[in-house]
Amino acid sequence: MQIIQTISKLRAWRKTAGYVAFVPTMGNLHDGHLALVAEARARGGRVVVSIFVNPLQFGQGEDYLTYPRTFEEDCAKLEAAGVDVVFHPDVAQLYPRVEQAYKVEPPAIQDELCGKFRPGHFRGVATVVSKLFNIVQPDCAMFGKKDYQQLKVISGMVADLDMPIEVVPVDTGRAADGLALSSRNGYLTEGERAEAPRLYRNLSAIKAALEAGERDFVKLTETARADLENHGWRVDYVEIRSADRLEHARPGDRSLVVLAAARLGRPRLIDNLEVTLN
Amino acid sequence: MQIIQTISKLRAWRKTAGYVAFVPTMGNLHDGHLALVAEARARGGRVVVSIFVNPLQFGQGEDYLTYPRTFEEDCAKLEAAGVDVVFHPDVAQLYPRVEQAYKVEPPAIQDELCGKFRPGHFRGVATVVSKLFNIVQPDCAMFGKKDYQQLKVISGMVADLDMPIEVVPVDTGRAADGLALSSRNGYLTEGERAEAPRLYRNLSAIKAALEAGERDFVKLTETARADLENHGWRVDYVEIRSADRLEHARPGDRSLVVLAAARLGRPRLIDNLEVTLN
Repeated sequence: MQIIQTISKLRAWRKTAGYVAFVPTMGNLHDGHLALVAEARARGGRVVVSIFVNPLQFGQGEDYLTYPRTFEEDCAKLEAAGVDVVFHPDVAQLYPRVEQAYKVEPPAIQDELCGKFRPGHFRGVATVVSKLFNIVQPDCAMFGKKDYQQLKVISGMVADLDMPIEVVPVDTGRAADGLALSSRNGYLTEGERAEAPRLYRNLSAIKAALEAGERDFVKLTETARADLENHGWRVDYVEIRSADRLEHARPGDRSLVVLAAARLGRPRLIDNLEVTLN
Repeated sequence: MQIIQTISKLRAWRKTAGYVAFVPTMGNLHDGHLALVAEARARGGRVVVSIFVNPLQFGQGEDYLTYPRTFEEDCAKLEAAGVDVVFHPDVAQLYPRVEQAYKVEPPAIQDELCGKFRPGHFRGVATVVSKLFNIVQPDCAMFGKKDYQQLKVISGMVADLDMPIEVVPVDTGRAADGLALSSRNGYLTEGERAEAPRLYRNLSAIKAALEAGERDFVKLTETARADLENHGWRVDYVEIRSADRLEHARPGDRSLVVLAAARLGRPRLIDNLEVTLN
């Protein structure tokens, strides 16, 4: 496994690499990331994993500086997983003029759901992923459904800007008790970790109710919100949206996603479940 | 020479095309465009010319609908010039969802110079060129210095978004009397055509004065503006800027560009001259 730190060396490697599957990450890798890598390996070509904590997608007061950086452990996991190249640029490689002047601007969805609570986050994500795509020039790129809104923003960007890349959605990895795997779970105290699966349980309850025919979306999401708040969570949102474009769900929609974001102590946790109705 | 109208066919052709030089145009080709094509051919690989009148870069009240479309004549010129592929998508190919939701957003320079008079123009240019780059995947792309601000926006975008493309600036083609070649010259009446070189003569006078040591930028540009207005022009701007980043020129700057835009009757003409001081 090669570790490449500069754009020029990555481009040189790319010239003869053939089919490339790409997994962009911010490091601090868990089994969710390794599921993305496995999906990438299954494509049969070379696998590039980027590790870059992107300042552009963190807002004021967010955890950019304290975001867990575990490069050596990450590389050990990636080598064991059969990755060909770890692309690990420093901030000056990706932002040599400090200010990123040209940005990829997503549409209004960037200001809803998580975007409402993280202004500029999805602009930062779209821009850095666009840069990484232009550097790695992958044939396909893996994105977890855990970050569902991010997946939709990237898919939309690729389609709308005609990027020659297949976006591959990968199911969310979960602990045995249902908690979605996330680097930010590391911020949880022991007590919070025991409480954390309540988020998934509430999403599952909404999914079950939808499948049983319930269509009072407000009642469903308010019930979940109340349950979380009663157990010490500060809820950013619980919402039911159309799965394709994340529009507000209507009673006749068949392909939905239930999404939630809430803080438990310090960390902000997000999760979602797709729901397909017959 | 192949004429390709769909993204999928262009992508299929691209797979085995090797080195590709790209000339994006809006058609209505003149010798200025053919100079771009000659530069592209000199690269030794294949040459793709796109012809697409991009609605996204025209504003309200601009000439999108009446912009001259001369596809057959254009193709004859391009075939004679040794072009390999003309990419000629219709609007539904590039904007299948009608609305282009994801855009490439240039920095504040987009609202100065021509951008001040054409709101959204450079966003539209950056976005469509980004799309065309993702479709054609050229190794290099030719842009005329005639549209100097456009050239700088594209160069900035390519650098900032790490696009794997060499941007090649090509000198402005001119008529014998100095008038910069432009599709919009076709809108000029006979009398206006005789008057039109005054724009170039004023830029040349400013260049000569700068080379002679004059540094009163305001006096230089106001003199040119007055001369144009005295001869029936409606002047949008005459400005002296730094050639690299189009910042307002300072007395110590060595690498400058003098830019102007003005209306003569119906058409709006633009031109510029680079000035390098010792």
